[in-house]
Amino acid sequence: MLLNGTRRLVSVPAATSRLAWTTTLTNRRLAPTLLARRAMASSTWFPTEPTAPVVKTDTVPGPKSVSLLEELDQLQDPRAAMFMTDLTKSVGNYLSDADGNQFLDVYCQIASIPLGYNHPAILEISRSPEMLTALANRSCLGVFPPMDWTHTLRESFMRVAPAGLDQVFTTMCGSCANELAYKAAFMHHQAKHRGPNFKMAGSKEASTCMHNQPPGSPHLAILSFRKAFHGRMLGSLSTTRSKAIHKLDVPAFPWPEAPFPQLRYPLEDYAAENAQEEQRCLEATEAVIRESSVPVAAVVVEPIQSEGGDNHASPAFFRGLRDLTRRLDVLLIVDEVQTGVGATGTFWAHEQWGLDAADAPDAVTFSKKFQAAGFYHTQKLRPDQPFRNFNTWMGDPVRALHAKAIVDTVMQDDLLQVVQQTGNHLKRGLASLAERHPKTFTNLRGEGTFLAFDFATPELRNRFVGGMRQLGVNMGVCGEVTVRLRPMLTFEKHHADHFLERVDKTLQFWA
Amino acid sequence: MLLNGTRRLVSVPAATSRLAWTTTLTNRRLAPTLLARRAMASSTWFPTEPTAPVVKTDTVPGPKSVSLLEELDQLQDPRAAMFMTDLTKSVGNYLSDADGNQFLDVYCQIASIPLGYNHPAILEISRSPEMLTALANRSCLGVFPPMDWTHTLRESFMRVAPAGLDQVFTTMCGSCANELAYKAAFMHHQAKHRGPNFKMAGSKEASTCMHNQPPGSPHLAILSFRKAFHGRMLGSLSTTRSKAIHKLDVPAFPWPEAPFPQLRYPLEDYAAENAQEEQRCLEATEAVIRESSVPVAAVVVEPIQSEGGDNHASPAFFRGLRDLTRRLDVLLIVDEVQTGVGATGTFWAHEQWGLDAADAPDAVTFSKKFQAAGFYHTQKLRPDQPFRNFNTWMGDPVRALHAKAIVDTVMQDDLLQVVQQTGNHLKRGLASLAERHPKTFTNLRGEGTFLAFDFATPELRNRFVGGMRQLGVNMGVCGEVTVRLRPMLTFEKHHADHFLERVDKTLQFWA
Repeated sequence: MLLNGTRRLVSVPAATSRLAWTTTLTNRRLAPTLLARRAMASSTWFPTEPTAPVVKTDTVPGPKSVSLLEELDQLQDPRAAMFMTDLTKSVGNYLSDADGNQFLDVYCQIASIPLGYNHPAILEISRSPEMLTALANRSCLGVFPPMDWTHTLRESFMRVAPAGLDQVFTTMCGSCANELAYKAAFMHHQAKHRGPNFKMAGSKEASTCMHNQPPGSPHLAILSFRKAFHGRMLGSLSTTRSKAIHKLDVPAFPWPEAPFPQLRYPLEDYAAENAQEEQRCLEATEAVIRESSVPVAAVVVEPIQSEGGDNHASPAFFRGLRDLTRRLDVLLIVDEVQTGVGATGTFWAHEQWGLDAADAPDAVTFSKKFQAAGFYHTQKLRPDQPFRNFNTWMGDPVRALHAKAIVDTVMQDDLLQVVQQTGNHLKRGLASLAERHPKTFTNLRGEGTFLAFDFATPELRNRFVGGMRQLGVNMGVCGEVTVRLRPMLTFEKHHADHFLERVDKTLQFWA
Repeated sequence: MLLNGTRRLVSVPAATSRLAWTTTLTNRRLAPTLLARRAMASSTWFPTEPTAPVVKTDTVPGPKSVSLLEELDQLQDPRAAMFMTDLTKSVGNYLSDADGNQFLDVYCQIASIPLGYNHPAILEISRSPEMLTALANRSCLGVFPPMDWTHTLRESFMRVAPAGLDQVFTTMCGSCANELAYKAAFMHHQAKHRGPNFKMAGSKEASTCMHNQPPGSPHLAILSFRKAFHGRMLGSLSTTRSKAIHKLDVPAFPWPEAPFPQLRYPLEDYAAENAQEEQRCLEATEAVIRESSVPVAAVVVEPIQSEGGDNHASPAFFRGLRDLTRRLDVLLIVDEVQTGVGATGTFWAHEQWGLDAADAPDAVTFSKKFQAAGFYHTQKLRPDQPFRNFNTWMGDPVRALHAKAIVDTVMQDDLLQVVQQTGNHLKRGLASLAERHPKTFTNLRGEGTFLAFDFATPELRNRFVGGMRQLGVNMGVCGEVTVRLRPMLTFEKHHADHFLERVDKTLQFWA
């Protein structure tokens, strides 16, 4: 998609050297930050970002968080919680906790905050009359759509629809987005095989499906890749292959898997080897589809395998996958739940594959940073009858309005360019640090600010992340040994410099 | 649960005769309506309800809705849509459409509007600072819970927690609520069988689940009843057995089914026969569990099978089900997605079963009218490790705040009593109409305002509903031949009278 919004010049300070981030950080900014400019342009008061991370407590979580988590423990399992947040005091790229610590946040609620905490544009639309109506009157969008729904769809999702996909199916979360795309794929597959003369009423299909038996409940599969993550409902979890803790003890469909390329870094040193690896995986994928005892209706793939360890493949691999799914008459579903909405430097990561609109994926799913969830598709993924791919709410106009504000802001503030610039700066800075601290982290990789690197062991990785948190940086992990960066789209060079400075400090502990 | 909130006396006009609703409706109200009193008590202006339904167009959908639906058709499948709504003009029990029609709404967005359109309490909380913070900063509740989250849980869900269940797991929708309860049941089942010494790391379970194979991905089942509806994701859909159109073409787990009682009406005439039918179903359920080739981890049941046709069973049946699941060491999950939040005259429908807290179901799921979704459970359904029953958002504080406002209002306005009173009036009125119009509808049944009745054929049923819509009543259907009433908790006697008057008129067409 093309971002045709008004482009404002974003002044970002030029780094004076590759190690500029090690110099004193005060008074270094040459222009107001994106968020400060936003706040100045607004008629309402907004808090401003802290100038640097602040950690007041000896440990994180601090004593207030610990006490509040004990209270939460009475009602909900708190064992996954890092700390309790104070959202009223969180601003922009900074997340505050109950103890008054202010973390530079490059994890962002598991990659799902697009513009920053209490962002002016999100606050404004959240206070709007349209929002109040949407909040107070939760619609069944499938049966009783509100009269402004088409307008909302156009102003939000459709302005950034991937080339070639002119339909959007709205859902409640990323798992649902994937599962409902799978259902659309199954219905399409069966319709194709039965032909146009099928009548459901009185059919063997209609009677057998009531007992979960074929042909009505067919043996059909979605193929996914090793290390993939596509969600945690029983269907989507059958395509998730990231970690045992995601899957253990939950019944799964016997759906096939294919190997995902394991690239070697730096890419420029292993071009031939990596190309061969990708070719091997494409051939294996084709063999799995051809030989699967359960027919494959669709292949689902992430542009970057995120939970599974930030595993990348080249555009050539994905073009090859599109080509083979076309040849084998299998649908291709691209899961952009984590990669979508700008963090890779394009609005959708799969835009970087260089596919024509005619070769577009059959469905592209989204959630997380878009706040709203769903999937784009073409007309052919509409089932033959209404009420088939259906549920009560069919999405949430509240979150569609947020999606609209996000698209507006990405266009107006030219955030894709911000991501590209910050991403380049961040990647260069990390590359320098890898040289300064040999034998610490490796395999630096990624596009835009969607970056990752690896440690030798899970323990070292976790020690690094703990050290960073104590210096005021909130980070996430993925895979076994990987650190993933998932900053907001408003993460600028000076934020990156704070981050890099603290990476440097943390790694010095190993020296 | 007990509603201990302040009780205000609700004045509802006494019916002067069983056919009072046939008299002129103007100036009949003895006290301001609930919604009018709410509006008067508020410092903000709220619109007032229309005094009666208004249909301005010759057909529904009217020309504006038709034109707007054609526009929607460019982006989304509009074939299930009845009309386009105008939510800014909808008030209380009245839903407005794009053509200016004002329908008395007894369908309520598929049973999911609790208090009415633009209800003062919902508008107020939607405008609150807490709501703004929750909207603008979408939390990953599992990892970064906001510091007021425990308070919100206590003020919303926990105030109406079913006796015996002191934990709440929050989710995004009803399907998710059921599937995540199923996952908790599977994890509990496996933990019980493996014992406390199991270590995941390095286990055969951990390696096999990565390939969707047992023992890591076990062959385990959730048993459901014929005609049940539990959602449409791939796991929940495997327990749904309502209609072929809900299930066709979607792969399903080979999970067993049991017969649900088919009661004869009026109940008082068939007491012995119905008791025998329920006993037969309990025995069959026990046999299915004992003989299932896939071990049953849990039984899921609706207190009233809603989508499947408003099929009821007696408290004795459900007590028997609780007893047999205990004996067979199988969990019992009660799906209150449609029945919960007051419409049956108790906050949860299963309160009417007369179970002690010690015999509480193992999980109770909710969504729809609570706006927020999730399930109540006991500590034993917490998995042995964090991050197992987990996802990005883990629910939505926005909707938890709405749940809080709903609980407040149910208590303050004594809405359970309103439902009971209106329900009695409505049921008596319908019973009179059944006598006045013999051979039209039968099997009048239900609790509170959660009522239903049957027609001889789907065609007659649909003709009735179409006739009612043309007279300004928006109704829903379920099963093959059933009409279901799902009004809001603020549906009062005068609303019921409007409804009954129009039922009478519509049935006269058959005379």
